[in-house]
Amino acid sequence: MQVAIYFFICVDLSLALFEEPALFPLPFLATSIAEVLCLTAFFGRLVHFAKVTPQMVFWKDTKNICIMVTIVLTLIDLIIYGSLEAVNIHSIRWSRALRPVFLINFPESRQIRRTFRSIRNTLPDILYVFLLFMFSVLIFSLMALKLFGVRSLKTVEGLPYFTDILEIAFELYVLVTTANSPDVMMPAYNFSRWYSLYFITYIIINTYIFMSVFLAVVYNNYRKHLKNEILKLAYLKRRKMIEAFNILKVKVGTEFVVTEAQWKRLAKIVMPHISSPHLELLLRISDEGQKGHVDKMNFLRLADLLNIQVVAINIKRHPLEDWMPRVYQSSASLLVQRMVRHRIFVWVYDVIILVNAIFIALDEKKPFISNAEWLFLSLYIIEILLKLYTYEPRAYFGRKQFWNWFDTLIIIAALVATVANATIQSGNYNSQQILDIVLILRILRLLRIIVSIQRFRLIVTTLINIGPTILTFGGLVLVVYYVFAIIGMEAFQGKVWFFDPNFTTPEAQVCGNPALTGSAFARDHYCKNNFNDLASSFIVLMELTVVNQWHVLAGGFALVTHQAAKLYFISFHIVVVILIVNIFIAFILEAFFVAYSLEKSEVETAIEKKIQELGVGVQEEEMQDGKLIDNMDAKDSGFSGDDGDNKRKALKGLYFRIASKKYRTVDALLQQMFESEITPEDEGPSLDEILNLSPSDIYPKNPSFGNSA
Amino acid sequence: MQVAIYFFICVDLSLALFEEPALFPLPFLATSIAEVLCLTAFFGRLVHFAKVTPQMVFWKDTKNICIMVTIVLTLIDLIIYGSLEAVNIHSIRWSRALRPVFLINFPESRQIRRTFRSIRNTLPDILYVFLLFMFSVLIFSLMALKLFGVRSLKTVEGLPYFTDILEIAFELYVLVTTANSPDVMMPAYNFSRWYSLYFITYIIINTYIFMSVFLAVVYNNYRKHLKNEILKLAYLKRRKMIEAFNILKVKVGTEFVVTEAQWKRLAKIVMPHISSPHLELLLRISDEGQKGHVDKMNFLRLADLLNIQVVAINIKRHPLEDWMPRVYQSSASLLVQRMVRHRIFVWVYDVIILVNAIFIALDEKKPFISNAEWLFLSLYIIEILLKLYTYEPRAYFGRKQFWNWFDTLIIIAALVATVANATIQSGNYNSQQILDIVLILRILRLLRIIVSIQRFRLIVTTLINIGPTILTFGGLVLVVYYVFAIIGMEAFQGKVWFFDPNFTTPEAQVCGNPALTGSAFARDHYCKNNFNDLASSFIVLMELTVVNQWHVLAGGFALVTHQAAKLYFISFHIVVVILIVNIFIAFILEAFFVAYSLEKSEVETAIEKKIQELGVGVQEEEMQDGKLIDNMDAKDSGFSGDDGDNKRKALKGLYFRIASKKYRTVDALLQQMFESEITPEDEGPSLDEILNLSPSDIYPKNPSFGNSA
Repeated sequence: MQVAIYFFICVDLSLALFEEPALFPLPFLATSIAEVLCLTAFFGRLVHFAKVTPQMVFWKDTKNICIMVTIVLTLIDLIIYGSLEAVNIHSIRWSRALRPVFLINFPESRQIRRTFRSIRNTLPDILYVFLLFMFSVLIFSLMALKLFGVRSLKTVEGLPYFTDILEIAFELYVLVTTANSPDVMMPAYNFSRWYSLYFITYIIINTYIFMSVFLAVVYNNYRKHLKNEILKLAYLKRRKMIEAFNILKVKVGTEFVVTEAQWKRLAKIVMPHISSPHLELLLRISDEGQKGHVDKMNFLRLADLLNIQVVAINIKRHPLEDWMPRVYQSSASLLVQRMVRHRIFVWVYDVIILVNAIFIALDEKKPFISNAEWLFLSLYIIEILLKLYTYEPRAYFGRKQFWNWFDTLIIIAALVATVANATIQSGNYNSQQILDIVLILRILRLLRIIVSIQRFRLIVTTLINIGPTILTFGGLVLVVYYVFAIIGMEAFQGKVWFFDPNFTTPEAQVCGNPALTGSAFARDHYCKNNFNDLASSFIVLMELTVVNQWHVLAGGFALVTHQAAKLYFISFHIVVVILIVNIFIAFILEAFFVAYSLEKSEVETAIEKKIQELGVGVQEEEMQDGKLIDNMDAKDSGFSGDDGDNKRKALKGLYFRIASKKYRTVDALLQQMFESEITPEDEGPSLDEILNLSPSDIYPKNPSFGNSA
Repeated sequence: MQVAIYFFICVDLSLALFEEPALFPLPFLATSIAEVLCLTAFFGRLVHFAKVTPQMVFWKDTKNICIMVTIVLTLIDLIIYGSLEAVNIHSIRWSRALRPVFLINFPESRQIRRTFRSIRNTLPDILYVFLLFMFSVLIFSLMALKLFGVRSLKTVEGLPYFTDILEIAFELYVLVTTANSPDVMMPAYNFSRWYSLYFITYIIINTYIFMSVFLAVVYNNYRKHLKNEILKLAYLKRRKMIEAFNILKVKVGTEFVVTEAQWKRLAKIVMPHISSPHLELLLRISDEGQKGHVDKMNFLRLADLLNIQVVAINIKRHPLEDWMPRVYQSSASLLVQRMVRHRIFVWVYDVIILVNAIFIALDEKKPFISNAEWLFLSLYIIEILLKLYTYEPRAYFGRKQFWNWFDTLIIIAALVATVANATIQSGNYNSQQILDIVLILRILRLLRIIVSIQRFRLIVTTLINIGPTILTFGGLVLVVYYVFAIIGMEAFQGKVWFFDPNFTTPEAQVCGNPALTGSAFARDHYCKNNFNDLASSFIVLMELTVVNQWHVLAGGFALVTHQAAKLYFISFHIVVVILIVNIFIAFILEAFFVAYSLEKSEVETAIEKKIQELGVGVQEEEMQDGKLIDNMDAKDSGFSGDDGDNKRKALKGLYFRIASKKYRTVDALLQQMFESEITPEDEGPSLDEILNLSPSDIYPKNPSFGNSA
């Protein structure tokens, strides 16, 4: 069902590829039928929803209202457009800009909705800063008009310099984005050295201070609302656990408790695949005194205990050692193993990779260099084989051994690429795309150097950990881009055309539009940056996000339509760069700070202590220095079930370890952080209060910007 | 003494204005004599220093060693340069780049030194991120070489596109700064749409993610080290207070205390101008039970108590009311007063200001508009007079009434400007500078709108509060700019010349250097961006800080010297943009967060409680809504000395208020924040431990990036 809805959302969104202006044109009838199909599917989903939820809840949910309104609006638009088209009047398909509503409002995309909510909540605070900022731009514009307007200066293009107040305001707004940085100053600076002071003051105030304040306001709100939402979740969890306790409790002595059997049954229901030793371990922690029951405090921790991944580690012998112990333990074999484990072995291969990089940079037409390719490749394969000889293979390719997998996959890819390359060259096969992919794969093998430098590995691990949440931003950016792309296509389609670079007619020089004659847009050959189809639009919007030269693009499209078109580009800048990019930066900052201050939670500490007490622990440090870990296979099950003194003897047996540092998402990390702020005694506010928690309730002493600044 | 040293530092630094390449040329003999004089002064200061500090301490202080080494090096350089000059060999005055050492290392510039220390401490953490980033740029360069190098594409200028690996690496580094954003992509994008994916990937990874990581690392370190330094100060203060207590203590009953008389004498010594009621108030807080002595816990708070500004407020009657009570209290007069206090009065004047803004934007040559000037001005003056009529004048211009002062000064400036303008126009006097200043002053009056919008006032207040510390960054930037300017002048002086814009010989078109023919540098008329004197160098460096078009500047100077010159520009980018600008942003973020989470400290709460108990308090809210405050004069002294029940009756008498929200610097705020983390019982570690505190001691659980990421 969920997959089907996502499929229909994808179809609906991708319709823009086939509608005029289309990348792959289809008749209006085909796309409109597809759209009606999608709408039917969304409506069906909504009806299903209405059936399973109480009516009150359903109608109070703005999500559902939004979807219904959008469906109706789209149908109206389709009918109007279709009937006008029938009498050959071309109108605008405005409802296309509403399509992302479906993506946002279906319950599955909670993350994107949360980010949108966070943006909406930030708006009031940012509004006043923005007004003050615009006021400052206006004051400076007036000054510029008075200072430079009367001097009849000329820009590099020979146009009048700073004579029109609207023109000046736009130029100064562009200067805030630094996109026209020295150019806008040069005529005044050439006239007199002192005028540079005006621009320096402007840049310090508006570019540096105001832009930092925007980041500060966005960041502060982001953090505040994130904390609010996560605290809400934590309180809800706490409440549910208390409810569960009240159902299961029995009275023993003076206090209410849950019996061991009940507790175990519950854990088994929640987590069917839990191994019995793992369960035993958790019970030992929850029932410290081994009294046969679990008290309320410890019962509330059950969810947290189950959430912590405890890994049972199994130290195995190398299969070759079992198979031919004599040979494997011979002095020559031991020497090889010692060599492979040695630091110098890593260094030698680092040097080989660097030499390889130089060879890639050289011209590969020479036979000497293309033969060297094979040499490097065989060296890499020998390395893998030597490592597999030294370390236990199943442990080497264990589930958590990300970097070993990474290393091996890169070499396999390089091998495939080199073979493919040789085939192509010998066989005269000449597909450009495949050739390019092969080239990229061969170069990517240099990434192996990351594997061998510990610090690099750590940075990359952090980046990979925040990866999934970065994808949420992908969704957010997609939504905003889609809306702007549809508007842009309606406004600017067909105004600018791309001609082949070898085509040098005067028309090609001005992108097929005489209005562009002499403009910076035509001079920089930006003809391919147009809104003639969805893909091109997205690329233009990406360039606008990067900000540089955006005024040239804005100026070009203003020339072929109207000066008011600049408003489209300014609003894109405000929405994407000032809001979304700042939220992205805030997110990365927060994620890194969380990673910096990573501490073990109280629950994890309890588990670890118990593991140590039972003598079945493996030190984190030993795991990390890469010696012990290579002989271990990390898996969740396969523990034999006896515990206590036996463990100590079984040196080659099983070990427990907390896989605590592998957080799936930053959300999980944050949740853990904020949860530790709720004391175990705190039962939280009532359900209604929880659901209506607003950030100001959490920060009673931290007033919002307006009150405290 | 301190003033003298700063004077000599200024002279020493400004020598660069007079030395070749000079803004105001002076003979070498003159500048070298001035320099030797400065060096003598610095040496003298050092000798004085050596006398007053123990020898051990003096020689262990790296500051002193640095200054000595710099003095010796400068002398050696002067001698070598002078003797070579005597035989007409032109050499390099390299020691000039060392001059900022004096600015940094004299004990008075503690703030700048702290920021430098913070940068130095950040370096190890940032280094690995930077290496990984460079590695990523290299990998992408190799890919670009393989993908695009063989396609024989051409750039807009008709040059070969992406054929040389060094060239590619530079272009891609520039792309990280976004300065060549769509241009570098266009040839590949024109060739095939798919190649845009390469650039999008590059921008996401390197521009967005890596640059945010840099900010995160810099920010995290900044916070860590700031906290460390401030905690150090707090512990030192605590220790000194304990020492003082141990000297003054007497035994009363079972515990050691300080007698009231001793306590008062100490407070009087520390703060000679304290008013006796203020002292009485503090004593009431310290000696809660009025037992005639102060115990240890309360004694330790003395410094904090004295640091909090308690303001005695005096409600006075309007002088007109005293002088002619009948008229002032007449119904017409009361109506005027009510009108002035009314909200609409403010709105009317907001509208007037906006109309004024439109008039300024219009052409002032018309007599109608220049006459309107006088109308607006008189309206503003009437406003001030009405306000002075309504509110008590001494209270209106009270010490803490920043906004009233601001408002009045702006109007006076506008008045002066308008009069000056009229004089100039009638008298044919035509100094451009004065005319420009007059123009700016007339426009600045629009800033009055900030005064009348509460939210704007709050934002500006926050910005003004962090102003002094922003000046520290000014010092830091000055130091770095100076060093780079000296190096730049030695390397690039006289290579590029500025010709008058009307001068259109071929030589002027290429900035007097044929090597620039056809370059972007000449095409954009950047000739005045040169290193031919200190002022020009600073402006070029400012443009490089803003980043946009920096590759054009770098490319231009590389053409007139050598491609290696680009390294100068890249290193400037790394030092200033990646390090200093990020620290600046981190600072603004932190300052705003502190302002957001502004809470009253425990000590302030105690004082406030006591003030309320004595019934002499004024509510903060009443102060802020602007009604009560206007009739009050805030001053520190002038309190009549009796306290207790009398106070309640004296409704028109004196009130106390905590001026807590006026922090001088963010440092003070931070110190207060971190201090509240030390419990009153905590006597802190020993003196040696305090001085050697390192960030890792404070954050034992927050490992540095390398360990935790």
